[in-house]
Amino acid sequence: MKAVVYLGPGRIEVADIPDPQIIHPRDAIVRVTLTAICGSDLHAYRGELPTFDSGTVLGHEFTGEVVEAGPEVPFAPGDPVLASDLVACGRCAVCARGWHYHCPQATLFGYSSVVGSPLPGGQAELVRVPFADVVLSRYPAVLTEEQVLFAGDILTTAVTAIVEAGVAPGDAVAIIGAGPVGLLSAMCARVSGASITIVADPDERRRVMASYLGFQSAEPSRLSQLMGDLGLEGVDRVVEAVGNDAALRCAIETVGAKGTVVAVGAHSSDTTTFPARRAFTGELTLRFAVGDPIKSRDRAIALVASGRLDPTRIVSHRLPLSESALGYQLFDQRLATKVVLTP
Amino acid sequence: MKAVVYLGPGRIEVADIPDPQIIHPRDAIVRVTLTAICGSDLHAYRGELPTFDSGTVLGHEFTGEVVEAGPEVPFAPGDPVLASDLVACGRCAVCARGWHYHCPQATLFGYSSVVGSPLPGGQAELVRVPFADVVLSRYPAVLTEEQVLFAGDILTTAVTAIVEAGVAPGDAVAIIGAGPVGLLSAMCARVSGASITIVADPDERRRVMASYLGFQSAEPSRLSQLMGDLGLEGVDRVVEAVGNDAALRCAIETVGAKGTVVAVGAHSSDTTTFPARRAFTGELTLRFAVGDPIKSRDRAIALVASGRLDPTRIVSHRLPLSESALGYQLFDQRLATKVVLTP
Amino acid sequence: MKAVVYLGPGRIEVADIPDPQIIHPRDAIVRVTLTAICGSDLHAYRGELPTFDSGTVLGHEFTGEVVEAGPEVPFAPGDPVLASDLVACGRCAVCARGWHYHCPQATLFGYSSVVGSPLPGGQAELVRVPFADVVLSRYPAVLTEEQVLFAGDILTTAVTAIVEAGVAPGDAVAIIGAGPVGLLSAMCARVSGASITIVADPDERRRVMASYLGFQSAEPSRLSQLMGDLGLEGVDRVVEAVGNDAALRCAIETVGAKGTVVAVGAHSSDTTTFPARRAFTGELTLRFAVGDPIKSRDRAIALVASGRLDPTRIVSHRLPLSESALGYQLFDQRLATKVVLTP
Amino acid sequence: MKAVVYLGPGRIEVADIPDPQIIHPRDAIVRVTLTAICGSDLHAYRGELPTFDSGTVLGHEFTGEVVEAGPEVPFAPGDPVLASDLVACGRCAVCARGWHYHCPQATLFGYSSVVGSPLPGGQAELVRVPFADVVLSRYPAVLTEEQVLFAGDILTTAVTAIVEAGVAPGDAVAIIGAGPVGLLSAMCARVSGASITIVADPDERRRVMASYLGFQSAEPSRLSQLMGDLGLEGVDRVVEAVGNDAALRCAIETVGAKGTVVAVGAHSSDTTTFPARRAFTGELTLRFAVGDPIKSRDRAIALVASGRLDPTRIVSHRLPLSESALGYQLFDQRLATKVVLTP
Repeated sequence: MKAVVYLGPGRIEVADIPDPQIIHPRDAIVRVTLTAICGSDLHAYRGELPTFDSGTVLGHEFTGEVVEAGPEVPFAPGDPVLASDLVACGRCAVCARGWHYHCPQATLFGYSSVVGSPLPGGQAELVRVPFADVVLSRYPAVLTEEQVLFAGDILTTAVTAIVEAGVAPGDAVAIIGAGPVGLLSAMCARVSGASITIVADPDERRRVMASYLGFQSAEPSRLSQLMGDLGLEGVDRVVEAVGNDAALRCAIETVGAKGTVVAVGAHSSDTTTFPARRAFTGELTLRFAVGDPIKSRDRAIALVASGRLDPTRIVSHRLPLSESALGYQLFDQRLATKVVLTP
Repeated sequence: MKAVVYLGPGRIEVADIPDPQIIHPRDAIVRVTLTAICGSDLHAYRGELPTFDSGTVLGHEFTGEVVEAGPEVPFAPGDPVLASDLVACGRCAVCARGWHYHCPQATLFGYSSVVGSPLPGGQAELVRVPFADVVLSRYPAVLTEEQVLFAGDILTTAVTAIVEAGVAPGDAVAIIGAGPVGLLSAMCARVSGASITIVADPDERRRVMASYLGFQSAEPSRLSQLMGDLGLEGVDRVVEAVGNDAALRCAIETVGAKGTVVAVGAHSSDTTTFPARRAFTGELTLRFAVGDPIKSRDRAIALVASGRLDPTRIVSHRLPLSESALGYQLFDQRLATKVVLTP
Repeated sequence: MKAVVYLGPGRIEVADIPDPQIIHPRDAIVRVTLTAICGSDLHAYRGELPTFDSGTVLGHEFTGEVVEAGPEVPFAPGDPVLASDLVACGRCAVCARGWHYHCPQATLFGYSSVVGSPLPGGQAELVRVPFADVVLSRYPAVLTEEQVLFAGDILTTAVTAIVEAGVAPGDAVAIIGAGPVGLLSAMCARVSGASITIVADPDERRRVMASYLGFQSAEPSRLSQLMGDLGLEGVDRVVEAVGNDAALRCAIETVGAKGTVVAVGAHSSDTTTFPARRAFTGELTLRFAVGDPIKSRDRAIALVASGRLDPTRIVSHRLPLSESALGYQLFDQRLATKVVLTP
Repeated sequence: MKAVVYLGPGRIEVADIPDPQIIHPRDAIVRVTLTAICGSDLHAYRGELPTFDSGTVLGHEFTGEVVEAGPEVPFAPGDPVLASDLVACGRCAVCARGWHYHCPQATLFGYSSVVGSPLPGGQAELVRVPFADVVLSRYPAVLTEEQVLFAGDILTTAVTAIVEAGVAPGDAVAIIGAGPVGLLSAMCARVSGASITIVADPDERRRVMASYLGFQSAEPSRLSQLMGDLGLEGVDRVVEAVGNDAALRCAIETVGAKGTVVAVGAHSSDTTTFPARRAFTGELTLRFAVGDPIKSRDRAIALVASGRLDPTRIVSHRLPLSESALGYQLFDQRLATKVVLTP
């Protein structure tokens, strides 16, 4: 089969590799119908993850059709399914609490050994899905692959961000970062009753995209001025969708007293600095959240199915899998907002 | 001054009574610019409240302009203000927890001695507002009286219902009762991320109004069929905006496992029956909530100011105060959805 | 093997029946080391459950030792295990939310078809445990069977009651019902920071037991007087551990403004009456909760292992399985507080 | 009257200054019966607060007796009262939400202009209390001044820490910092159901005090080893009661997946570093909280009145006000755990 393989920093190729096989009763083999490049794939692509193995099949966002199901898997060949990017056993004490990301067997498709054990990813024609009874879900036939695709990862992250932030009707909300997760978070904030949703990003093209989607946008350095113009001392809730020092600092400086910041950007430093004095005097809450499609994809799908939120609006490029290298380049250079690939 | 006075069941008149005076340093005198008839006024009008005194000046929803302010009141003559229907001292241990309705000095304008001590109401040219530093609030000049009016009572109730219900993006929500509070609750549910909002009411005209505002509507007896058609085993959240046995039962039968019912309808019976077996096996949460404009009106006003929600859409009749009797009749006969009165 | 079999109202016997066998890869066979009679077993014993089948092997509280494990079960023969009374698949979308009681495949050991499909119970020498990877858990070797036994049912229910009630340090708490669940709830309330814990029960022997365990106790009709003596207008939290009209009414009349009642008593009527007016004016929260050992037994076991709470204090009778009939009689007549049985 | 006056770094004196007078209808004059030196007074004493004015009367923990009450104050001469360290108006929109620390008029007794406007403190014979209707509260006559004193500041902070951390029965809890707030937090954790409470502090004398009070104690650098010995991968909740980089880092490294850290230590740096990667992969929640006696002192007092928690156990030194200088020295050198002063 064809699959997108990581060869080293900046180098991917669409290679021919052996078809995956069922190796456990809870496995399923899925023929991929649509997949996407995620911002976290870029960390690998850019060589920012030193332990990321060459030869890894990339990708953790995909829809598909069941080809073969192990005896413990309640799906039949032909079933249209959405995969969770996160793989968890569903049976341990940690999963029983609904904390799938912390399952001792948790892993991510196509992410080498960054989280758990390596598992070939979804930018491929076929994927072996372990714990398929837990990892896969059927979705409403009225929805297209593109409409549900992000519920397996970034849309669920965005919904989780808004839920964990406790956005309530009338709140002022700021989103730090206008990448795919940030834009979907802004869409979720608006649909969840935000009286105002401001999107901050240093990249002008990204701000244009945010404005095009109907949000107030600003350079991070101009957020405080914008809030002043809007008569706000600080917003009620912030989603930080970048994952670095500057974004976290911006989030904490933007939120008002007793406010909540939810950081869904993947922080990779353990010497991040932040304004603790301000956090203390503001009595802030700071939450870090990963997103859990196993638990929350149904909520995300309900939102899409209702027509309240159209996640396909962030898709800028639709390419065949064979042109994945172009997709990575465009996304890496911020010339694409979101790239989907058809095998 | 002119004021709407309750004379007995079904009998009100617009009478000439003495102007109110400041009697405490925290009092203010407010010239009413807009007032409304609330569903709870109908309980008095219909003689359902045996201890409701003849001679009571009715009304607890009003905007106005400060005419005179006691020395402890931080408003100046001419300030445009919104009154909270609920009066509380703001200084005791109960108010310090944000529980204004349970303040030992809590009372309602124009509601005789049903809650706390009698206090002449807002369907009048002038009102004495006790604890005016707490009870009144300024509002943004860009908003009209009609836009903010309901933030002093029913819109805040609706917002509270949705917040207490914990509506999150993607939830299916049902509203039992399509009166003013029910309709505003439905509007709040929609704006807060509900994937579907169903409004149930036995009255056909009210269902028509709900449909006109864009909601699914149903007779209560047909709710389960409608849910079946929608593929729902039960909704996630219900707001019960009626306050009787049938509505509470309907709410509990409509909500799904682990769901929440918030009852904002004013229950007046202490032998209400309800399906406890279902509540237990469904592990339901049932919350009763009154609404607290002192605490939450800013949230309601932010929602209106943002353009996300237009509460004036429920206003069916705009009458001069002199025609209040007609207003009460129309509202009592359900020929009016909501009546506002201009002194 | 020997097992306690229900023959009809008031009639049980210890019968010889065939040993259970593994029939699914996720099954385990467990040799029971300790089991107990639960208050809910009495509903069957008393003939209050019309659909309860004669021939049912009773019992849903048990510890044991694994005898044989299916290929999907991560336990080895000899492992000491605690069973959850509740059986759930652990894989579906409902389980993924941590809502095991609402799993489409949920059932209870030894409870005929009252909840889900019939499954032979734990008052036996051997038990087949379905979904054993989810239903069973190992427990710390330093604890005795009797110390962990109730974490599979009533202690977890008590912990859940206190957690769902939101008991915080300093709260006044009342427990309605001094049966095993009520007494454990009182112990959990005390250990969770309650400034006062009052236990109400109409049965004098049960009140004596509550007093012996160190709680204030009262007849339900004297609760309001007791609260007056204690200077309380109402308690902050109530656990209702009975499951009938009178108990629910008592709970609602005992809780103060903005308080929470958690009902863990198994309500079986759908025409329960309760004081809705009081619930509304008090802005109360009423939660119904079942308890979920799959999710929460570790919390209960941690509490026991720490020495903070000794659940064995409620055990009044320790009998061999062969004397189960006597155990049922004593418990039914309220001459026993809690009966444990050794096969 | 006599009062403790700050003269500059390391220099205080008990001076004769004019008696305070009522200047506003909501003022009261209180004769101090007991006062204490708080850890935050040491920041001033050590010269760490550059804007702290020489001449400031120190102290924000005190009980007293009302001497004179303004017309708006519902206390009578002779009433025994506890003061909140925090002063707030109780009338504004911020106070209405229960956010007294964020009231535009918020200030602290005896803290120069560090928070709000300067206000002479409570280490004095007499104090003028503004907004006395809100700031003062009566307390149960059965309690001594020493038993209630800390409910006006550090005990409420400790209770808030435990409530905000969401400590539930069975949780493992760590407290970073064994000063007065840390020790009271540990006492609150234990009384709130913690299965284990570990106190970490680099100072050996403080660890001895923690051990004496019955807690596991450890040097911060040995926490992970201690947790390993206890079979814990991380604790469920942490209270950080120090307020610097090292303590915050220790807190985040000690808490387990999905855990909560509540920081009540007063962070004064805006370039604090912390392990964001760990916070993200652990999906942690980090809350900063100040404590609000106006809102929560009744909860703290209920805990003390019940006998569940004895805050006087942390008092190491009881001195007359005239020996305040000695008290500051001992506390500054960590030779005293907590110093109370009698005028």
